[in-house]
Amino acid sequence: MAKWQQLLGESRKTIGDKRPLVHHITNYVVMNLTANVTLALGGSPVMAHDVDEVEEMASFASSLVLNIGTLSPRWIEAMLLAGKKAKARGVPVVFDPVGAGATSLRTETCRKILSEVRPDIIRGNRAEITILAGAVARISGVDSLETGEEPLELYRAFARESGAVVCVSGPSDRVTDGERMLRVDNGHPLFGRVTGMGCSATSAIAVFAAAGSRLLDATALAMGVFGACGEEAAAVAHGPGTFVPALIDALHRVSGGGTPPSLRITEG
Amino acid sequence: MAKWQQLLGESRKTIGDKRPLVHHITNYVVMNLTANVTLALGGSPVMAHDVDEVEEMASFASSLVLNIGTLSPRWIEAMLLAGKKAKARGVPVVFDPVGAGATSLRTETCRKILSEVRPDIIRGNRAEITILAGAVARISGVDSLETGEEPLELYRAFARESGAVVCVSGPSDRVTDGERMLRVDNGHPLFGRVTGMGCSATSAIAVFAAAGSRLLDATALAMGVFGACGEEAAAVAHGPGTFVPALIDALHRVSGGGTPPSLRITEG
Amino acid sequence: MAKWQQLLGESRKTIGDKRPLVHHITNYVVMNLTANVTLALGGSPVMAHDVDEVEEMASFASSLVLNIGTLSPRWIEAMLLAGKKAKARGVPVVFDPVGAGATSLRTETCRKILSEVRPDIIRGNRAEITILAGAVARISGVDSLETGEEPLELYRAFARESGAVVCVSGPSDRVTDGERMLRVDNGHPLFGRVTGMGCSATSAIAVFAAAGSRLLDATALAMGVFGACGEEAAAVAHGPGTFVPALIDALHRVSGGGTPPSLRITEG
Repeated sequence: MAKWQQLLGESRKTIGDKRPLVHHITNYVVMNLTANVTLALGGSPVMAHDVDEVEEMASFASSLVLNIGTLSPRWIEAMLLAGKKAKARGVPVVFDPVGAGATSLRTETCRKILSEVRPDIIRGNRAEITILAGAVARISGVDSLETGEEPLELYRAFARESGAVVCVSGPSDRVTDGERMLRVDNGHPLFGRVTGMGCSATSAIAVFAAAGSRLLDATALAMGVFGACGEEAAAVAHGPGTFVPALIDALHRVSGGGTPPSLRITEG
Repeated sequence: MAKWQQLLGESRKTIGDKRPLVHHITNYVVMNLTANVTLALGGSPVMAHDVDEVEEMASFASSLVLNIGTLSPRWIEAMLLAGKKAKARGVPVVFDPVGAGATSLRTETCRKILSEVRPDIIRGNRAEITILAGAVARISGVDSLETGEEPLELYRAFARESGAVVCVSGPSDRVTDGERMLRVDNGHPLFGRVTGMGCSATSAIAVFAAAGSRLLDATALAMGVFGACGEEAAAVAHGPGTFVPALIDALHRVSGGGTPPSLRITEG
Repeated sequence: MAKWQQLLGESRKTIGDKRPLVHHITNYVVMNLTANVTLALGGSPVMAHDVDEVEEMASFASSLVLNIGTLSPRWIEAMLLAGKKAKARGVPVVFDPVGAGATSLRTETCRKILSEVRPDIIRGNRAEITILAGAVARISGVDSLETGEEPLELYRAFARESGAVVCVSGPSDRVTDGERMLRVDNGHPLFGRVTGMGCSATSAIAVFAAAGSRLLDATALAMGVFGACGEEAAAVAHGPGTFVPALIDALHRVSGGGTPPSLRITEG
């Protein structure tokens, strides 16, 4: 564990010094929340979604979030433009395939983003990742949605196929680059009762990815910090309403140099 | 009253078992809030607004919210498509005519939705409903805006004309199907000092309507629960800012099986 | 100081009597927040952004906010239409040039709004105002971004050139009409850790500007009240998450007739 506490110490120092600009093209539901999560962690959020400016914005951002939660054609075009620009600059692109599989627009958009942008990190829940692996990368795994078993080999195969670090949120989060597999046990059931918690975790990943450590580590670290702050928030909240402000407070304590939360990240 | 407490018990069990998917095409201002209200009550919210996917989304949702708070042409088209799809499937469509009468775009859009979709439930404040009844259903009632009297017969006539359960929010809410008239006395003045409280009540209605009881009852029940949770929230809040998280907490206690709030729903 | 406390007393009475309708064309990130700020201060917010209705909405609003935080072509067109309508009616237009200078779309949109609408009040941070003064009004001042010194003469020149009251947010806010220069020392560092605090201050200005006192005074008063409420909120908050609801509560106490906050507004 000591490794992760040390990496957290280094990352939050880098983030504090650099205040990474995290460019978001994200859904309407979570814009305010994810901007506040980014700020609380020491990043600087910018939301810009139009084809007329996304490439320019992506040309000086430190990382890019593409989130398909509320889609329309012009936004899809903007995501592709911004994503390619960020990739050309070597800036981490974090993709959140919200609702993949629910409609063909979403699945098709995922296909385009995966093939044309090649994101560096993909974070979704088990259903989204399993469906993407099947529909886009043609890796079979929809069966896993019916069973209780976590399809770890499917996650690994999808990571290799997509060339991305794949992060699957759940009671335990899994993070893999196709070879190594990390498990993050921080978290709390209240995360499932609030909208945008997955999207917020994606923004947290984008902040840590901008700090320059290896993307696999940065992703696991962000999930651990986000989950641990949720544990702290749940301890003072009276339900999902008071959980959200308490979560932001807890994230802010991390970036502000407070006692680091206890991370439960393990290999395998 | 015992009837309503019993119906609440049955409904929350059904909602808990089914986790109804509530498809929202709603305004930008309240998307995060209404998603959290839906989750707190045990529903599962999805926001999808584009013509390229709304019919597909509506084809497996358990209820549909159409809310015109922030309109534009493509969204109007999407509301009509999704509304017709939901109606064809027999899924409850709940319509919130935000700002009806304020601009001709809003009034005209209401006219289209009422005639082309024929929503199952309409919730608005007295001004919105009175104007809709006059402008769309050609029922005279604008005078009522000037007087203190609640135009109950106009509400009934509008319900019969529109074929919908009509719910009029106010210090006392009124709910009618054109014959029966229910009155809901739960509520608190702080609801008037927070944006999106009417829109949130509409989402609450959509959750209860998906649980399958009669729409008149489901609507009154949702208004009673929402208002009673506001009373609980006001008891611990220090103003409209802390009222909102406390309200979400209170709604979550209801769905979580906590002591049911005291409902004040009467006939007439 | 007594002048400002007296002006606050008068303004909040006027706002309470009039409940000014503040029409916002603003960014997605802050819509919910700024609507709640407007309500908490006693105003009545309406968000309407489409070219099909903005002129009609602007034809009966008491003030208009134009905020370019999340831009796209149709919204720009709507801002110009609404702005011209409000100006033709003599209603205060408050402009928030979010991210001016970050992309050419933003800078160019600012140029259009400044020349075609001629807003009555402009509120931004130092970078935004300095860049606007240079790029749009061709007043040199970008150097000031590198130095610690507040370029007061540049602010004055920009106010004269634009014909607007210019408000520059920062540790101390500056407000000038090109001649007089006011300084507002209310505020708290947590404002910098929450998204949309500048946008919210802009909405506060729009509420006070609708109350009919001189725009220079109304702007300084709004900044003082907003900053002082932030001080109160910070005293009870545990971080940026709990700061926001506490801020809304504090703003609501002001409009509700509570003990007025201590304003620190001075000349020069």
